[in-house]
Amino acid sequence: MLALRKSLYRILETSAGKRRGISLIFNLILIGIITLNAIAIVLHTVPEYNLRFARLFYDFEVFSVGFFTIEYLLRLWVCVENEKYHHPFWGRLRYMFSTSAIIDFLAIFPFYFSLFATDLAIVRILRLFRIFRLFRISRYSHAFRLIQSVVSDKKEELVLSTILVVFMLIIVSSIMYYVEHNAQPDKFSSIPATMWWGVTAMTTVGYGDIHPITPLGKFLGGIAAIVGIGLFALPTGILVSGFNEHIRVHKGGHSRQRCPHCGKEI
Amino acid sequence: MLALRKSLYRILETSAGKRRGISLIFNLILIGIITLNAIAIVLHTVPEYNLRFARLFYDFEVFSVGFFTIEYLLRLWVCVENEKYHHPFWGRLRYMFSTSAIIDFLAIFPFYFSLFATDLAIVRILRLFRIFRLFRISRYSHAFRLIQSVVSDKKEELVLSTILVVFMLIIVSSIMYYVEHNAQPDKFSSIPATMWWGVTAMTTVGYGDIHPITPLGKFLGGIAAIVGIGLFALPTGILVSGFNEHIRVHKGGHSRQRCPHCGKEI
Amino acid sequence: MLALRKSLYRILETSAGKRRGISLIFNLILIGIITLNAIAIVLHTVPEYNLRFARLFYDFEVFSVGFFTIEYLLRLWVCVENEKYHHPFWGRLRYMFSTSAIIDFLAIFPFYFSLFATDLAIVRILRLFRIFRLFRISRYSHAFRLIQSVVSDKKEELVLSTILVVFMLIIVSSIMYYVEHNAQPDKFSSIPATMWWGVTAMTTVGYGDIHPITPLGKFLGGIAAIVGIGLFALPTGILVSGFNEHIRVHKGGHSRQRCPHCGKEI
Amino acid sequence: MLALRKSLYRILETSAGKRRGISLIFNLILIGIITLNAIAIVLHTVPEYNLRFARLFYDFEVFSVGFFTIEYLLRLWVCVENEKYHHPFWGRLRYMFSTSAIIDFLAIFPFYFSLFATDLAIVRILRLFRIFRLFRISRYSHAFRLIQSVVSDKKEELVLSTILVVFMLIIVSSIMYYVEHNAQPDKFSSIPATMWWGVTAMTTVGYGDIHPITPLGKFLGGIAAIVGIGLFALPTGILVSGFNEHIRVHKGGHSRQRCPHCGKEI
Repeated sequence: MLALRKSLYRILETSAGKRRGISLIFNLILIGIITLNAIAIVLHTVPEYNLRFARLFYDFEVFSVGFFTIEYLLRLWVCVENEKYHHPFWGRLRYMFSTSAIIDFLAIFPFYFSLFATDLAIVRILRLFRIFRLFRISRYSHAFRLIQSVVSDKKEELVLSTILVVFMLIIVSSIMYYVEHNAQPDKFSSIPATMWWGVTAMTTVGYGDIHPITPLGKFLGGIAAIVGIGLFALPTGILVSGFNEHIRVHKGGHSRQRCPHCGKEI
Repeated sequence: MLALRKSLYRILETSAGKRRGISLIFNLILIGIITLNAIAIVLHTVPEYNLRFARLFYDFEVFSVGFFTIEYLLRLWVCVENEKYHHPFWGRLRYMFSTSAIIDFLAIFPFYFSLFATDLAIVRILRLFRIFRLFRISRYSHAFRLIQSVVSDKKEELVLSTILVVFMLIIVSSIMYYVEHNAQPDKFSSIPATMWWGVTAMTTVGYGDIHPITPLGKFLGGIAAIVGIGLFALPTGILVSGFNEHIRVHKGGHSRQRCPHCGKEI
Repeated sequence: MLALRKSLYRILETSAGKRRGISLIFNLILIGIITLNAIAIVLHTVPEYNLRFARLFYDFEVFSVGFFTIEYLLRLWVCVENEKYHHPFWGRLRYMFSTSAIIDFLAIFPFYFSLFATDLAIVRILRLFRIFRLFRISRYSHAFRLIQSVVSDKKEELVLSTILVVFMLIIVSSIMYYVEHNAQPDKFSSIPATMWWGVTAMTTVGYGDIHPITPLGKFLGGIAAIVGIGLFALPTGILVSGFNEHIRVHKGGHSRQRCPHCGKEI
Repeated sequence: MLALRKSLYRILETSAGKRRGISLIFNLILIGIITLNAIAIVLHTVPEYNLRFARLFYDFEVFSVGFFTIEYLLRLWVCVENEKYHHPFWGRLRYMFSTSAIIDFLAIFPFYFSLFATDLAIVRILRLFRIFRLFRISRYSHAFRLIQSVVSDKKEELVLSTILVVFMLIIVSSIMYYVEHNAQPDKFSSIPATMWWGVTAMTTVGYGDIHPITPLGKFLGGIAAIVGIGLFALPTGILVSGFNEHIRVHKGGHSRQRCPHCGKEI
């Protein structure tokens, strides 16, 4: 029994170096099921497909939840193999409150809950929780570990630039509200409403549903666009440069440059 | 009395190294009040909240102004502890005209003025001055000192690129005005009106309220978009790269460079 | 006959170092015909020009196809001069399935097919294939070889960031669908429909045909804009930095670095 | 007379090192007049100002043209002081066809021509030529010399990326035309018309006057947005990085870093 638990742990555990054999196959199946879940969640909302493939969607839903539930219980059983969750009871409890276990739980729990829910509004909200099944893939994808480490590397800069963005948004929207409110009382109805304009203007999305029409408003909007875009581009710029740096360092580890003449590292 | 002034100066003064004890608590309270003021200013303009919480908004307003007024007067009293404002009278006068003291003053003055103002239009404008309370936070936030030093580092480049942006805007808008004016005399009514198009097009906001419709106008608009975006992105690019450089230098403290000649750290 | 094949191979083959004499002239003629084809394809769809120059368009079409067909057959004849396609039959067959030969084939084949097609719908689709004539220029232009090598250098990063973009798009669109569906059932009709909003919002295009109108939708849309733009800018940032790096390395040939240990050029 | 010509040459000539005394004053006056011309050109098109200040605008126009004409003639007289235009007749003729002399000429010529023009359409077009007066400032501004050298440094990259942009635009617009033409025959009426969509989509301006509505069109439009934006951002990225590099090199010349311990350059 303990030997089974140990080998099962090795199959389920993904962070343990290179995956091979059964572990690789299991993980590929899991990624496949998650991807199919993503497709099902997206297509499920198209009325046409929902009507035609209702049975298929439901069966796949039941199968997915069943698969994920068994997997969740197995993970809970074997997690004590990990030193961090060594204790049979407290270790498993602590594992249940780890980020990935919570995501795993939120991916299945709403299904069981909705079986007993009578209120349709709650069922609707529970359906939204299925999105957590997509987040499960973050455990397997290199891309998510990469973006995670970039975000944690640049945490300080991202927080600083977010503060600047929020501050800029409040200032610009407050001024624009006082300038445009009289001309367009229905659109620039309050500062929070004007902040929607601020976001769409300074991220350069510009849907066109709300924009200044007075000459002063246009003048301030123009200046805000040029200045604000610079600040709103900061998080993006930090993320892109962090991504580039990370890749360079990551790649640099494999191929440190050497002088072709004397052979020393440069 | 002088001892009290000295210790009060240490509590109020934020730039003096690490804050501890009462100074830290006082500053956290101040940041809290400023943040609440930001929320109040924003929510105050939502008619629903304004009606329901009118009393609360007013009380908080009176409390904030009272708090800020006492703080302002105390700062004026203790500022002579600073060598820069040593003289009891001239020092305090010079302090009153320092940037941060002006911001502090503008954050409270309009309230008192509005008590005596009878003209509603003036009261409206005075309300806008409450935004200066938000600027007060710039004294406490690392993010603002950072952006300030980036802007002052890159002052020259930002001025140069702003000149290019303004020049580009006038040229492109003048040409577009002559091309589109006959087809859309109401929208491209004058060069200043066309400059609104120019800003929305070259910052890529594109609200859609004004755009060329003639084939020649679209052709020029397309070229202007590709060329102009490059110039309009210059200030943003300068700001982002300045921000990245600054962070790198700032962090560089941990892993210092060594001189290749003498081997000592630089 | 073999000597003719050899010299013809040298004329047609573009990758063989510097082009001179007849080879240069032939290639310039080919680039000219491809450019004229691009102009013809574009102007052909303008009803006005199509009516007036119908004869000219048709004649140029016949001439182009004739020229390209002869060129294709000649290339097929001489390709055995290349070591890779040495065998008279299997070599030629393998050449026919090389990327550039397939593009060459797709540029002429639809014309012949459309002569026998009676169904207008098929003729329309075949017309679209003429775009492959434009792709033929990729063989001659330095710009395309450059972008190709940048894409292949940064393949891994581009794949990673594309996964992030797709994941982000599904997550954001799923949430927005549940938030906005009730308020705008015709626009946010399904998650795939909402993904159109997601793409236009997070690429900052923002046509304005679809955007959130509920306060919660606007709030989430604002956050999604700021966060999502960062992720959607990753592929662009990678491409731009890859392009810059490539140019720097390419130009680096002029001003080579020296090893700090032995002083020789690297 | 020759001595006068020589000193006049020194006053007018701006590229000759540092300007001082009369030369500085003259150049500041010229920049002032050009700036006032920019303001006049812009405000002239606002009907309100045009009516009220018609006399002022006309007088300033006559004064500017007079000033610029005298300046042009003086420049023509003294240009022979420059070695490049040494010959009294052929030198002056060659000077007249230098870029800056042509700009100077185009800034004044249309005024004289319009005095004799009877056709209003021609007068309108001639008015557009006044924009050349703005270009005159490029001779005096550091910003324009900077952007000029960045563009000439990065000429090759800018040409390459422009080719990619044009190619991408034709391909994407051709495909989109065949996909959307049947659904929106009035908007996607031809490939040139679709190219307007292509430019607004891939520069992320997105006015919203034209966008795909079919599912396939939206799908292709989404992919085109993500891929195309990367290519359309290349010229912008090149310009921004070129600008940054140029500034760094330019600044680097003044302040080469030195080791604070041994004093050697690093």
